[in-house]
Amino acid sequence: MTQHRQNILVTVDTAIFTLQDSQLQVLLVQRATEPFKGAWALPGGVVQEEPDGSLEQTAFRKLAEKTGVASPYLEQVMTFGGPERDPRGYSVSVLYMALLRSTELVLQGDDRVSDIAWVRVDGERVDRPLAFDHAKLLEAACQRLRSKAQYSSLIAHLLPDEFTLSELREAYSSILGVSLNAAGFRRRVLQAGLVEEVKGAFRHHGRRPAQLYRLHPESNQVYFETNLMWRVGEG
Amino acid sequence: MTQHRQNILVTVDTAIFTLQDSQLQVLLVQRATEPFKGAWALPGGVVQEEPDGSLEQTAFRKLAEKTGVASPYLEQVMTFGGPERDPRGYSVSVLYMALLRSTELVLQGDDRVSDIAWVRVDGERVDRPLAFDHAKLLEAACQRLRSKAQYSSLIAHLLPDEFTLSELREAYSSILGVSLNAAGFRRRVLQAGLVEEVKGAFRHHGRRPAQLYRLHPESNQVYFETNLMWRVGEG
Repeated sequence: MTQHRQNILVTVDTAIFTLQDSQLQVLLVQRATEPFKGAWALPGGVVQEEPDGSLEQTAFRKLAEKTGVASPYLEQVMTFGGPERDPRGYSVSVLYMALLRSTELVLQGDDRVSDIAWVRVDGERVDRPLAFDHAKLLEAACQRLRSKAQYSSLIAHLLPDEFTLSELREAYSSILGVSLNAAGFRRRVLQAGLVEEVKGAFRHHGRRPAQLYRLHPESNQVYFETNLMWRVGEG
Repeated sequence: MTQHRQNILVTVDTAIFTLQDSQLQVLLVQRATEPFKGAWALPGGVVQEEPDGSLEQTAFRKLAEKTGVASPYLEQVMTFGGPERDPRGYSVSVLYMALLRSTELVLQGDDRVSDIAWVRVDGERVDRPLAFDHAKLLEAACQRLRSKAQYSSLIAHLLPDEFTLSELREAYSSILGVSLNAAGFRRRVLQAGLVEEVKGAFRHHGRRPAQLYRLHPESNQVYFETNLMWRVGEG
């Protein structure tokens, strides 16, 4: 490599999602420095060769700094690279997505951001322009979230530890953008072993108490054998 | 970024797959230089800020150099990074997977490799140790290939332009590692609009001529709504 010294900036950026009132939200920071000073962006940071043993560690480190949450669900989505993304030169951004339970949220800015906020995601967009190519990154993260929602238990990571099946169904409906049949959803979810009953625990509002469930502890991502949307459409 | 100059080596490595006699093969090169001189590795190359407009362009460039194929099916799999992967220091490798029709294969070495070969993949492994963490990269590419095979038309990119449904089924069977029911497979594949008949074209061997099909031209990746394995198990 001696004949070719690269000068590439490598960052890790994370789309941090949560649900508030069944509505998908993403964490954005307002940049306090150039380039794109004043613009909103996905939180991220430069990979540091010294403390970070892997890209995932960089992502976890930045997450803990911004949200105080040490171990949320974290998944690598895709890597973006090219000479046009950043005015400083060729840059590479490894995009992660993190799912937070809304009860975990404690925001912490630092001197590199002037503001930090949860912003509502509609479709795959937010209500403001984003710095760099972060609109494209957000789109990729939303697509991954929706595509995994069709086949897996991923969405349960956006809910509190214990939830009713109606709350889980509302979360799936909101993210998939479709209304899901209650009986069909219930059957599929229980059949897939996605959740388990919390013995003797019920939510008391409405006419009769609703059983509480939690994500199956054996796995943080259980897969359906069929597309959830398609299958519940039947039931 | 002036306060923190990174010194990170960014490469693009590609698991180039093909099928020969229904058996998955991956393209490997034998390294002619240190580190890992003499060891086999996935072909790849250092990202060059100048000619390469994106990571995908780097991948396409290296692919054309090694195989002479300009536009195969190409998909980004995952990015690996850390201080331990490469003795030269912190490195980032963006892993792609490419699918080649076996008829397209023309291998071309260059002065950085001492040999180049198609090597049989069994499970997610090859018969020799690989340089760097490339055994892990190969495993990730195989998992992606298998997981997509369960839900999409991807595997057809490993076949010649025109194929019989038996040839397609054998390719899926080989990659999924399961035997697939012929009638069920046929029904699912036709129902999903994955392939279309080549009018009037037949393969003549065996007792009766077999209809030839090609991948549906509208899309290079059609998705099933259900897991192919599960569904054909029924039929």
